[in-house]
Amino acid sequence: MKYTVLKRDGRAKRAEMETVHGTIQTPVFMNVGTVGAIKGAVSTADLEEIGTQVELSNTYHLHVRTGDELIKEMGGLHKFMSWNRPILTDSGGFQVFSLAGLRKIKEEGVTFNSHIDGRKIFMGPEESMQIQSNLGSTIAMAFDECPPALAEREYVRPSVERTTRWLERCIKEMAELNGRPDTVNKEQLLFGINQGAIYADIRIEHAKRISEFDLPGYAIGGLAVGESHEQMYYILDETVPYLPENKPVYLMGVGTPANILEAVDRGVDFFDCVYPTRNGRHAHMYTNHGKLNLMNSKYEKDDRPIEEGCGCPACRRYSRAYIRHLLKAKEMLGMRLGVLHNLYFYNHLMEEIRDAIDEGRYKEFKNQKLKDLAGE
Amino acid sequence: MKYTVLKRDGRAKRAEMETVHGTIQTPVFMNVGTVGAIKGAVSTADLEEIGTQVELSNTYHLHVRTGDELIKEMGGLHKFMSWNRPILTDSGGFQVFSLAGLRKIKEEGVTFNSHIDGRKIFMGPEESMQIQSNLGSTIAMAFDECPPALAEREYVRPSVERTTRWLERCIKEMAELNGRPDTVNKEQLLFGINQGAIYADIRIEHAKRISEFDLPGYAIGGLAVGESHEQMYYILDETVPYLPENKPVYLMGVGTPANILEAVDRGVDFFDCVYPTRNGRHAHMYTNHGKLNLMNSKYEKDDRPIEEGCGCPACRRYSRAYIRHLLKAKEMLGMRLGVLHNLYFYNHLMEEIRDAIDEGRYKEFKNQKLKDLAGE
Repeated sequence: MKYTVLKRDGRAKRAEMETVHGTIQTPVFMNVGTVGAIKGAVSTADLEEIGTQVELSNTYHLHVRTGDELIKEMGGLHKFMSWNRPILTDSGGFQVFSLAGLRKIKEEGVTFNSHIDGRKIFMGPEESMQIQSNLGSTIAMAFDECPPALAEREYVRPSVERTTRWLERCIKEMAELNGRPDTVNKEQLLFGINQGAIYADIRIEHAKRISEFDLPGYAIGGLAVGESHEQMYYILDETVPYLPENKPVYLMGVGTPANILEAVDRGVDFFDCVYPTRNGRHAHMYTNHGKLNLMNSKYEKDDRPIEEGCGCPACRRYSRAYIRHLLKAKEMLGMRLGVLHNLYFYNHLMEEIRDAIDEGRYKEFKNQKLKDLAGE
Repeated sequence: MKYTVLKRDGRAKRAEMETVHGTIQTPVFMNVGTVGAIKGAVSTADLEEIGTQVELSNTYHLHVRTGDELIKEMGGLHKFMSWNRPILTDSGGFQVFSLAGLRKIKEEGVTFNSHIDGRKIFMGPEESMQIQSNLGSTIAMAFDECPPALAEREYVRPSVERTTRWLERCIKEMAELNGRPDTVNKEQLLFGINQGAIYADIRIEHAKRISEFDLPGYAIGGLAVGESHEQMYYILDETVPYLPENKPVYLMGVGTPANILEAVDRGVDFFDCVYPTRNGRHAHMYTNHGKLNLMNSKYEKDDRPIEEGCGCPACRRYSRAYIRHLLKAKEMLGMRLGVLHNLYFYNHLMEEIRDAIDEGRYKEFKNQKLKDLAGE
């Protein structure tokens, strides 16, 4: 893996990251395919068409559903889902803490009940690495605890310390797994995760500590889970400078186009979020003049595309009126076209961001784009 | 419209039909898109890729849901759904009799309650023609009564007589509508429908009677609704010879690949059926060696495509194991890939049928194919 910063514009970074599954141009938005597929009947052939660079799959979902061991037997997640560009897998921790029936957090790991069949499952750093190794993703995420955004300092500090100890166990386990002869992807990369809720001092201390491990990349976790946008930007302002500047920075689960524009300006490279897919399935469409709700009756006879000039497969061929009709009739095709448009919008936004940094006009671009997106 | 029989092989016919929306090669299977979209998130771009010649939409569904008047304002169904090849619309009658809350059949028409919002709607021959004219389909179907397959003679005879009177009103109304300056498709074609349940004498008498109207095509309705396959083939044997031999014959709502093979051998040109789409959404996949149920655990680790050598977008890229995983996880993409495969299978079967007739080897082809499909 080789990460090269091509250009800096203020704190905004334009970089490229070479992996065994191809080169990633950053800043990049990863398209979320929870169970090894993008919701809304979007195929990997579609992802290629809409310019997706990195697909993100959820370790928890693949583990409790079809099983990572089966996927390993099938040659790994890339082969299983027919996607040969980079894949990032999360650690499973976030879903365990938010979705599954969490039973107990101990030093060893976490015991929880599957949301599918209720069976009791244990997951610790080693188990998370084993699952991600079975999936063979390009980038694996460290197993961490993600405390609630507004948790008390007294809860957050020991939680973060445990996350550091878990990271050390992840690093050790990943090195061991990458060395095994039957490993799907022997060059699997591990990103560490910074935690600390909204306490800048805890975040900074933790950022310094995990930077010592010289990992191929670092993520900022535990944001966009209840705090205000201002708090999120403040934490980025304070924390990013303490992460290695020659490594990619990934802001997990973020966010709106405005969040992304602001975070890029604070040095973030990688993003992921369910907003474009979830909104696309619910008639909320992104445009450069604000979001449209296609359920609104004013679009009933609107024969324009979702956005004039958009190059996505929905806009190149179908009208607002038709997509609205499909969504009203609960035809899956309506959801699919909505998801294709929104993912294309996000992917294209990142391309514009990269161009603006390349050309040294990021601040100006950001300010104008924020106005456009607000419909001003 | 010009219909040319290119070749006969026994009673099997190989023909082409020129329409304002392009030429249809028959025998043909029409792909059913109920509400102006194929269920399973299949787009018109997908239909072009899988070789669909004719799309079929349901008048009843488009009338009670989005409304044919809105679709007319949007330039007609072809423009609305972005499909420039032929479209056939049914009359709405079948859904009124089977799906809606039917209230009363009178000489004027039928009163029923919408299955969407319960509102009371009246539909007679004139209304059906007006709706189909608003949609601007290539081929409109006459408004008929579809009596239950096993109805008594005493019910069927007067019903068929009324269907004839309704046909005369359809012809008159369609001529009037096609002459209007603001009509979407001034060359809209009307097919008459033969009824008579399983009573060959009533079918024959009715076939002779409607043939006198010299319509551009004729359908056989009211089959595949409860009678046995043998009864269906018997009715085809008896009735088809009394329909004009220089006109296309459409067997409505049929059927399995075996039904189609047998019906082609009895002179049928056009088919439609929800089997490939419905089965595709429920893990039942057609192959030349019988149907597969992908939910079966034996496909859990099967990395072969649904059918080896198949050229459909699902088989070219995805494995049985992956599609099974998607269907188990209730990911829409699984349904979409299933529908794409099954529609491609049907479209490709028709291509093989046309080739076999062209080459004068239809009987032989049919017998071998029936064995293959039965997994023998």
